Amino acid sequence: MQWVKGLGLGLGAAALFALGIILGHFAIPKNASSPAPSTSPSQDLDLEILETILGQLNADRIRENLRELSREPHLASSPRDEALVQLLLQRWRDPESGLDSAEVFEYQVLLSFPSQEQPNSVDVVNSTGDILHTCRRTEENLTGEQGGHDVVPPYAAYAPPGTPQGLLVYANQGTEEDFKKLQTQGIKLEGTIALTRYGGAGRGAKAVNAARHGVIGLLVYTDPADINDGLRLPNETFPNSWHLPPSGVERGSYYEYFGDPLTPYLPASPSSFRLDLANVSGFPPIPTQPIGFQDAKDLLCNLNGSLAPEAWQGALGCDYRLGPGFRPDGDFPADSQVKVSVYNRLEQRNSSNVLGIIHGAVEPDRYVLYGNHRDSWVHGAVDPSSGTAVLLELSRILGTLLKKGTWRPRRSIMFGSWGAEEFGLIGSTEFTEEFFSKLQERTVAYINVDISVFANATLRVQGTPPVQSVVFSAAKEIRSPGSEDLSIYDNWIRYFNRSSPVYGLVPSVGSLGAGSDYAPFIHFLGISSMDIAYTYDRSKTSARIYPTYHTAFDTFGYVDKFVDPGFSSHQAVARTAGSVLLRLSDSFFLPLNVGDYSETLRSFLQAAQQELGTLLEQNNISLGPLVAAVEEFEAAAKALGQHIATLQKGTPDPLQVRMLNDQLMLLERAFLNPRAFPEERYYSHVLWAPRTSSTATFPGLANACSRASNTSPGSEAWAEVQRQLSIVVVALEGAAATLRPVADL
Amino acid sequence: MQWVKGLGLGLGAAALFALGIILGHFAIPKNASSPAPSTSPSQDLDLEILETILGQLNADRIRENLRELSREPHLASSPRDEALVQLLLQRWRDPESGLDSAEVFEYQVLLSFPSQEQPNSVDVVNSTGDILHTCRRTEENLTGEQGGHDVVPPYAAYAPPGTPQGLLVYANQGTEEDFKKLQTQGIKLEGTIALTRYGGAGRGAKAVNAARHGVIGLLVYTDPADINDGLRLPNETFPNSWHLPPSGVERGSYYEYFGDPLTPYLPASPSSFRLDLANVSGFPPIPTQPIGFQDAKDLLCNLNGSLAPEAWQGALGCDYRLGPGFRPDGDFPADSQVKVSVYNRLEQRNSSNVLGIIHGAVEPDRYVLYGNHRDSWVHGAVDPSSGTAVLLELSRILGTLLKKGTWRPRRSIMFGSWGAEEFGLIGSTEFTEEFFSKLQERTVAYINVDISVFANATLRVQGTPPVQSVVFSAAKEIRSPGSEDLSIYDNWIRYFNRSSPVYGLVPSVGSLGAGSDYAPFIHFLGISSMDIAYTYDRSKTSARIYPTYHTAFDTFGYVDKFVDPGFSSHQAVARTAGSVLLRLSDSFFLPLNVGDYSETLRSFLQAAQQELGTLLEQNNISLGPLVAAVEEFEAAAKALGQHIATLQKGTPDPLQVRMLNDQLMLLERAFLNPRAFPEERYYSHVLWAPRTSSTATFPGLANACSRASNTSPGSEAWAEVQRQLSIVVVALEGAAATLRPVADL
Repeated sequence: MQWVKGLGLGLGAAALFALGIILGHFAIPKNASSPAPSTSPSQDLDLEILETILGQLNADRIRENLRELSREPHLASSPRDEALVQLLLQRWRDPESGLDSAEVFEYQVLLSFPSQEQPNSVDVVNSTGDILHTCRRTEENLTGEQGGHDVVPPYAAYAPPGTPQGLLVYANQGTEEDFKKLQTQGIKLEGTIALTRYGGAGRGAKAVNAARHGVIGLLVYTDPADINDGLRLPNETFPNSWHLPPSGVERGSYYEYFGDPLTPYLPASPSSFRLDLANVSGFPPIPTQPIGFQDAKDLLCNLNGSLAPEAWQGALGCDYRLGPGFRPDGDFPADSQVKVSVYNRLEQRNSSNVLGIIHGAVEPDRYVLYGNHRDSWVHGAVDPSSGTAVLLELSRILGTLLKKGTWRPRRSIMFGSWGAEEFGLIGSTEFTEEFFSKLQERTVAYINVDISVFANATLRVQGTPPVQSVVFSAAKEIRSPGSEDLSIYDNWIRYFNRSSPVYGLVPSVGSLGAGSDYAPFIHFLGISSMDIAYTYDRSKTSARIYPTYHTAFDTFGYVDKFVDPGFSSHQAVARTAGSVLLRLSDSFFLPLNVGDYSETLRSFLQAAQQELGTLLEQNNISLGPLVAAVEEFEAAAKALGQHIATLQKGTPDPLQVRMLNDQLMLLERAFLNPRAFPEERYYSHVLWAPRTSSTATFPGLANACSRASNTSPGSEAWAEVQRQLSIVVVALEGAAATLRPVADL
Repeated sequence: MQWVKGLGLGLGAAALFALGIILGHFAIPKNASSPAPSTSPSQDLDLEILETILGQLNADRIRENLRELSREPHLASSPRDEALVQLLLQRWRDPESGLDSAEVFEYQVLLSFPSQEQPNSVDVVNSTGDILHTCRRTEENLTGEQGGHDVVPPYAAYAPPGTPQGLLVYANQGTEEDFKKLQTQGIKLEGTIALTRYGGAGRGAKAVNAARHGVIGLLVYTDPADINDGLRLPNETFPNSWHLPPSGVERGSYYEYFGDPLTPYLPASPSSFRLDLANVSGFPPIPTQPIGFQDAKDLLCNLNGSLAPEAWQGALGCDYRLGPGFRPDGDFPADSQVKVSVYNRLEQRNSSNVLGIIHGAVEPDRYVLYGNHRDSWVHGAVDPSSGTAVLLELSRILGTLLKKGTWRPRRSIMFGSWGAEEFGLIGSTEFTEEFFSKLQERTVAYINVDISVFANATLRVQGTPPVQSVVFSAAKEIRSPGSEDLSIYDNWIRYFNRSSPVYGLVPSVGSLGAGSDYAPFIHFLGISSMDIAYTYDRSKTSARIYPTYHTAFDTFGYVDKFVDPGFSSHQAVARTAGSVLLRLSDSFFLPLNVGDYSETLRSFLQAAQQELGTLLEQNNISLGPLVAAVEEFEAAAKALGQHIATLQKGTPDPLQVRMLNDQLMLLERAFLNPRAFPEERYYSHVLWAPRTSSTATFPGLANACSRASNTSPGSEAWAEVQRQLSIVVVALEGAAATLRPVADL
C-alpha cells in the first residue's frame, strides 16, 4: 500500500490510507449530494480523499471492463457500439456507483464503409485481364477472435469507389518528397498504382500527394521494419508474440480534416445544414486500399526498376525496387498490372456521445472534462477500450463516493464517451460545436485518455504548458508499477526528459496534434488539454505504434497476454489521470501553471530567431516586436506568480480566488484567433496550429515563411509573413494583458 | 430636489438626499481606496449613494466642460485633439476628483484630409473650360466662430483625389434604386457627375452605387427638406434659429467599414502588419465632395431634363429635374459641365484613446465601460463634446467620492475617450482589437454617450435587450427636465413606445447599428451595449439629425442658445447614464435582464414566418428548427428568471451570485459567430449584423433569402439560406444552453 509519497505528514502510508478512509467516512456529511448548502466556498482538495480514490482504483476491475468493452467489434454506429452506449448509461446511472446524471447526445454523421456485397479487392492482372493474384480480403483468423461477421474488412475510410488499374510503383511513405524523388528518377507516375507504407505522412496526405503526381490508385501497408522491429515470420508474430502477423492490416480514416464532413462548424443534428457532397473537401482523391505485409511482399518483392534508396528499404526480406511494373523473372509476367477495386460507400449514420456529469459543490459552472472515444475499428481492446476501461473504473470509484455522500468535487466533472472518433474525431468535434459558448466560457481543462496503455515502460503525456505542473504533481505521488521505490514521475523522467531553463531536468510533455479527441478542445475551443498514456521504452523499439493498431488482432487476449498482463499499467494511468482530474476539480487554487507558457514562448522565439531570423532580416522583417511581446508575457506571468504566492499565504476570499482562477482558466483562450488560419478548419490556436516545418516555433509564422521563401520581396506571401507575425504578437500581448492585475488594462 | 422617486422609503426626497450624504460620509470607511480588504463580498448598490451622485451632477459644470471642449476645432489627430487628451488626463489624474488611473493609448491610423495647398473645388465649366461658377470652399463665418484656421474645409474623408468633369445629373439619395430609376428613365449615367442629397443611403454607399452605374464624380448636399423642415432662408436659419444656414456642409467619412483601414482585426500599433493601399477595400471609388444647399440650389435648380419624381423633390424652392446637364434658359450654357476637383490625401497619423479606470472593490475583474469619442469635425459642440462634457462631469463626481473614500464600486469602471471616431470608429475599434480577450471575458456592458443632446424632448436609448431593464429602472427614478411630475421614463414613453407582450406599453429601445463607438463592442466583442441621448419630438420635426451636424456651425454658442439652454437635458442624460453605470457597476445581482431577449427572438421569428415563410416553404426549407430553438431559449430564460427570483429571496453566497452574473454577462457572447458573415468585417453577432431588408428579423437569414430569391432551387444561394438558418439555430441553442442550470449541458 506504499504508493503515496511526499505528503510530508510523517505517517506511514498505510496508516495514512486508513485515516483517509475514516475521515472520508465520518468527517464529511452524508447529505453532500445536495451540493451548495453544506459546502464551504473555500473547499479545497482533500489529500486523504484523493488517496482513498487512487487506492481504490482496481486493476482487476479495469481488466473486467476491458473484457466486456472489447468482447465484440464495435465500429462506430454498429449495433455493438450502440450497446456500449447503453452499457455506459447503465454504469453512470447506477444507483450505487453512478454519477449525478448521464445522457446520450446523438448526431447524424457521414461515415464510410466497405460494401458488403462487393468486397474491395487488390489483384494482379495480366495483359488479357486474367487475375493472377488476389490480396487477402480479411485478416487470418489466428485465435478464433478475428473471424466474426462483425469484423469490418480492412479499408481506407472515405476513399472513393473506383477500379483503377496500372503498373505498380513503390513510393516509400507517400510524402511529397517521395513522389518527387520518383519523378527525379525518371519514373512516369501518370496512371500508376502506388504502393506506400504507413508512416511519414498522414493517411489522407499519401492519397493527396499520389494524386497530385498522376497516380490513380493507392495501396498502403505496414512494413515489419516500422511496426515489428523487423520481425515478420508467423512464429515471430501474434499469437506467438505481440508483433503484427503478416495478414494484419491497419484500417483508418483517410479524411484530411476532423469532425463530420458535411457539417463543418455546425453540430450534425438532423436539421443542420449539410454541404453538398460535391462541395466537400478533404476526402482522398483516388481509390485507396490498405493491405497486410504478407501481400505487400508479394507485390513489392516482385517489382522491377532500379533499387530504391537505402532509407526506403524495409524488412520484407527482399530488395525494394521502385517499379514501374514487375520484373521479368518474378512471380508475374512483366506486363502485369495491379488493379485496385474499391467499393466503399458513404452513409449517414447515427452516432452518439454519452455524457456523465458530477455536479460541482461550490463552482458547478466550472467543468473539468475527461473523455475518450468509444468506437473501435474491430475489437479495439487497446484502441480505445483500454482508455474506456480506465474511465469506467475511475467513474465507478467517484460515483460510489458520491452516492455515499463521502465526496463531491468543488467543480463539475464531465465524462465523455465520444462516438466515431476513428472516422475523424467526429463525436467530440460535434460536441464542441453544439456547446461551443458554454464549454469555452467554463471549461477548466480537458483530459483525454484514449489508448491508456501502449506498453509498460513509462508514462507519456502530451499537453499544453499549463497542465505540466498538475501532471507532475500527480505523477510524483504515485508509485511506478512494478517498482516499490520509484514514483511514476521518477520513472518517467528516465525515458522522456528535457532540460528546462526554469526547473532543470524534467519529464518532457509532448505537444498536441490532432491524433485524438483533444484536438477540437485545444484547437477549436482553446481549452488547456492533455493526453495521458503508458508507453514504450523507445530504446527498445522503433515501432510506429503498438503492432496490432487498427487491426483485428487488437483483442482482449492480446492486451491480457502481451500489452499489460496484470493491468498494472492501466492502473497507473487510472491513478495518474484520476489524480489530475481530482486536482483540477477539487483544488481551491486551480493547478494550472500558466507561467509555464513563458518557457514555451521563449523557446519558440529562439527557434524563430535561429531558423528564420536571417531570412526575415533579408526581407526587412524584424522580430523585435515578437521579442518585446514574449518579454511582456514573461513579465506578466512572473508578476501573476508572485500574486498567487501572496494569496496562498493568506486566507483569501473565495471571490478573489475565483478571479485568479478565471485568469488561469482563460489564458489558453487568449491564444485563439479564429481569423488567423482561415484555410485550416477548426485550427484557431496561434501556438499549436499545424506546422509544415519541423522547427518548434510559432506555426503561422513558420508556415508563412516557408511559403514566402521562394517568392520575391514584396510578394503577397511576404505580406502574409508580416500578417502572421502581427497575429502572434497581438495574441501574446493580449494574453499578457489577461495576466496583469485584473483592474488594469 | 424632488427628482428621486419610488424608493418606497416613505421619506421626503430632500430628507432622503441629506441622509444619503450623511450615510455616504460617515458610514463608509475612508480607507476604501485600498479595495478588497475593507469590503464585503456581498456589497450591493447603495441607493443613497446613487442619489447623492445623481444629485451632484451639475448642469453648469457640464456647460463649462462643453465650453472648454468645444472652444477650438479638434479634428482627430490635430494639436487641439492632442490638447484635449491632456485635458482628460489631467481631469482623471486630479488628486481631488480623479480616478484610480488614467492612461493614453496611441495608435498609428490612416486618416484622410483635404490638401491645404490645393483646395477641393466644385465648378461649373463651359465647353471651353472657363469656370462659370465655383461652389463655396468654406462655410460662411456668421458669428465669428466659423472662420478659424483650424476649421477643416468641407470634404468627403477617404474620397480619392481626382478631377472628373461631366454633365450633372440629380440622383436623389444615391441609393441603388435611385440610380436604377434614372437608367429606367433613359438617362445615360456613364461619365456624369451625380448630385445626391444626404439620407437614405450611407455616405460611402452613395459613391459605390454611383460608380457602379458609371458616374465619375459625386456631390452630396443636405436638402433643407431633410434637415430644416424646409426652411432655407438666412433669416430662418442660424444664427437666427437652430436651422442649418445655406453655406453649411456636412462633412463625414465615406469609408464603408470601421476601424483603421490598414489594420483590420489588428491594433494599429507601429509594428502591426498594414495592408498595401492597393488591397484596401471600402474606400469610395470616385472623387466625392459635399456642398451646402446654397450651392446645391445653383446646380439643381438649373438642371435640364425631365421632372424628378415627387418623392425626389426638396425644399430648394424650384422644381428638381434629373438632368443630364443644365437647361438652356438657366444660369449656365446648356453644354456646361460640372468639374469636381478633389485633392484629399491619406495620412498616417497618431490618434489616442484615453482610458480612466476606477478599480472595483469586490470584483475588479468585471468591467463596466463608459465611453465617447473625443474628435470632432470642427468645434463639435454637440458631436461629440456634449457627450464628453457629460462624461467629465460624471467622472468628476465619482472621482471625488472615490478620493474622499466615500465610495468604491463593486466592479471596475473604465471610462474611454476614443480617438478618430469620425473617420470610422477607429479608436474604439483599435481598443477592442488590442484587448480583445480581456474585454470579451470580463466586460459587463458598454455604455456609449456620444451626442448627449440632440434636442430637449425625450430620452432616446438604443441597445440590446438585456440593457432595457436597467435603463428603465434608472429612467423611472429621475425627474424629467422641466417637469416636476414626470419621470424621464414617464416622459419617454410618450414619445417612443411599443406594446410589449410581456410588459404592456413600454418605451421602445432602438437597435444598435454602427453609428457610434458601440459598434465594435456589440458586433465584434458581443458585449451588451447601449447608446443614451436626449432627442427630438418627432411629431414636430422630420429632420434627419440636428441641423448643424458635422458643420462649422456646431458650436458652444449654438448649444447654449438653441440646443439645450440651461443644460437640463445634458443633466438628465448625465443622471440617466450615471444611474445605469452605477447600477451595473454596484449591484450585487447584475441588472441585465437576459430574459428580455425572448421577446426579441419571438418577434424576429414571427417576422421571419410572415415575411419569409412562404418563400422558404416553396424551397422546402422549414422554419421548424428555428421555432424549436426560440422555444428552447424562452424556456431556459424563464427558468433562469425563476432561479434568480429564488436566489434574491435568500442570502446567497457571493460565489453563487458570481456564477449567475457570469451567465448574464456572457449571454450576449453566445450570439457571436466569427464565421457567420465572413464578408462583413467585424460583424459577428448573429442577431444584429446588418440587414439589407427592412424586416426586423434574423439578419443572416433575411440577407441570404434576399440574395437567393431570384435563383433557382438548389442554387448555392439557397444552400447559404440553409447554412444561415443553421447558424442562427445553433446560436440560439448554444445561448439557451448557457442559461440552463450551470452543471447541466
